[in-house]
Amino acid sequence: MRAARYYGRGNIQIDNVPEPDVAPGTVGIDVAWCGICGTDLHEYLEGPIFCPQPGERHPASGDSLPVTLGHEFAGTVYAVGQGVDDIAPGQRVAVEPYIARDDVNTGPDSTDYHLSEGLGVIGLSGGGGGLAEKIAVPRRWVHPIPDSVPLDHAALIEPLSVGYHAVERSGAKTGQVALVGGAGPIGLLTSALLKALGVTVIVSELSSLRRKKASDAGVADHVLDPREVDVAEEVRRLTKGRGADVAFECSSAQAVLDTLIDALRPAGTLVVIGIWGDRAAIDLFKLVVKEIDLRGAFAYVNSYPAVIELLGSGRIDLEPFVTHKIGLDGLIQEGFNTLIHHSETAVKILVSPSGEGL
Amino acid sequence: MRAARYYGRGNIQIDNVPEPDVAPGTVGIDVAWCGICGTDLHEYLEGPIFCPQPGERHPASGDSLPVTLGHEFAGTVYAVGQGVDDIAPGQRVAVEPYIARDDVNTGPDSTDYHLSEGLGVIGLSGGGGGLAEKIAVPRRWVHPIPDSVPLDHAALIEPLSVGYHAVERSGAKTGQVALVGGAGPIGLLTSALLKALGVTVIVSELSSLRRKKASDAGVADHVLDPREVDVAEEVRRLTKGRGADVAFECSSAQAVLDTLIDALRPAGTLVVIGIWGDRAAIDLFKLVVKEIDLRGAFAYVNSYPAVIELLGSGRIDLEPFVTHKIGLDGLIQEGFNTLIHHSETAVKILVSPSGEGL
Repeated sequence: MRAARYYGRGNIQIDNVPEPDVAPGTVGIDVAWCGICGTDLHEYLEGPIFCPQPGERHPASGDSLPVTLGHEFAGTVYAVGQGVDDIAPGQRVAVEPYIARDDVNTGPDSTDYHLSEGLGVIGLSGGGGGLAEKIAVPRRWVHPIPDSVPLDHAALIEPLSVGYHAVERSGAKTGQVALVGGAGPIGLLTSALLKALGVTVIVSELSSLRRKKASDAGVADHVLDPREVDVAEEVRRLTKGRGADVAFECSSAQAVLDTLIDALRPAGTLVVIGIWGDRAAIDLFKLVVKEIDLRGAFAYVNSYPAVIELLGSGRIDLEPFVTHKIGLDGLIQEGFNTLIHHSETAVKILVSPSGEGL
Repeated sequence: MRAARYYGRGNIQIDNVPEPDVAPGTVGIDVAWCGICGTDLHEYLEGPIFCPQPGERHPASGDSLPVTLGHEFAGTVYAVGQGVDDIAPGQRVAVEPYIARDDVNTGPDSTDYHLSEGLGVIGLSGGGGGLAEKIAVPRRWVHPIPDSVPLDHAALIEPLSVGYHAVERSGAKTGQVALVGGAGPIGLLTSALLKALGVTVIVSELSSLRRKKASDAGVADHVLDPREVDVAEEVRRLTKGRGADVAFECSSAQAVLDTLIDALRPAGTLVVIGIWGDRAAIDLFKLVVKEIDLRGAFAYVNSYPAVIELLGSGRIDLEPFVTHKIGLDGLIQEGFNTLIHHSETAVKILVSPSGEGL
């Protein structure tokens, strides 16, 4: 079968590789769609970060370079390994792409397996990936999806879960006001989730194309251009002087962080989802006298069932966010290069490893 | 009567001033003891900050310079104004030194009057101060204290409430492990409160005199010198690899902040109490992937009743923290200058405005 494999910085190749072994306890999946994530770009441009280091085996998977990429994927079960009796071939599924140590509690009661020591990610740390025609994944991480959710939308369950977990971390409640800083894929999906929760959403974004996307997709009540208006002032005006209840940092930009802290009401909550390469310069005096909670949000934990139910209910429409569909051969040219050079026009680029959906 | 009045940066004078008018709804108090706070030092050295600006009336109090200083005080009621019928002369009291606007809910159900717009502080913003023989304070802010609490200890209810509120903000629970960064007055009082809650306390402090105070006062289970040990490593060793559950930033120092973030366990909570003049450079990547909550804690809100009960129960001994007792004439030389030049030897310097307790 064909797979996109990462050999190191700037080096991704489409290889012919053996089909995965559907070992006991695992589920064999025909991948329908796999999204390209910002993390994949970071590996390509600056990695290896989460991928194995050259000459080393990744502690989570035991795999070394090259590794198959892709961690945002969905598909159809084609085989189940020994001992798997609650899922059958033909079932449509999304994968929560974790590789956890055996001694970690990954049960439905766990609130912290995503922070456990030695955690790896399928499609980065090894363990196969969604940018291949097939993959075998431990049953624990395979989530059935209802018939009403098409497989291309199901490939967005992974990034949607990132947003879902961030919204959970914020404690946002129906009727509150949220300010979302940055309308890239995670900012847009987080906005969609907030809207579905009945939160008033204000989006601040520099790019006019992204602002248009936020407006057109109907995920924002107000879309602000920080070059045109003083965002914090405008948020106070929109909230009768009060300020936003919650804010989401989805840009990894210092100016955005400052604006969010300014625009929050006293005792407001700021969730940082962005992955920062450099340190942020934070005005702790302001954070202290306003008693702001600044909370990191990383990935997701037991979020898939709720996100799948939300998608199944039709309360979130992912169609506006699937902007490109490509085959494996177009991965670098149409995929990565579009995200690197024309990121404003793309929200989510989906890859069909077999080419069947195209 | 005599009062220490602030005229502007570097200019505090002991003046003879009229006794306060015990107006309707207020309580006249003979001040027994008033502590000198770091905030008073900041006004003296760098102010006016919370004090009125030259030539202006403070919006909270309507007062202009000079203003009487002192916001950490306790004393005995000598008169009550019209309409005050639940407190009588002779009652020993501590004062919660707020000046709040009339439209702010300051009731026992409020969780945010300390963050309300236009809030002022008695002894900084005007409204009299504890560094005077007498003061009249609205009944709302006067808290009776039990007979078992001496008035010198009662003068520490204000800074103790700062620590109490910070501990509340941390969500620390009995049996958990706390790392306290900095053993100045607030660090020590916060440690004492954590110990009383049944939390294991690890204190990190550069000054050997302050480390000795933390040890001698019995408020720390472990006292670390960051020049001798890698504090984060040592915290992990003491917690079997896990890390601290909660951490308190009581130093306004970048190195301390970094150490606390390192030493916290995943999903740990970092409370910043320190008032930072400069921005802090925060490693948001680490904060995100560990999902740390960084929470500002400012002053206190409805904390006095619980703190007074705690003191009354004898579960906290404040005696080790009263290091100096002086009269009003020694305010600058024995008081401020000791804190400026020999801060390591002083925790709390108490002033007797009438000289009676000396």
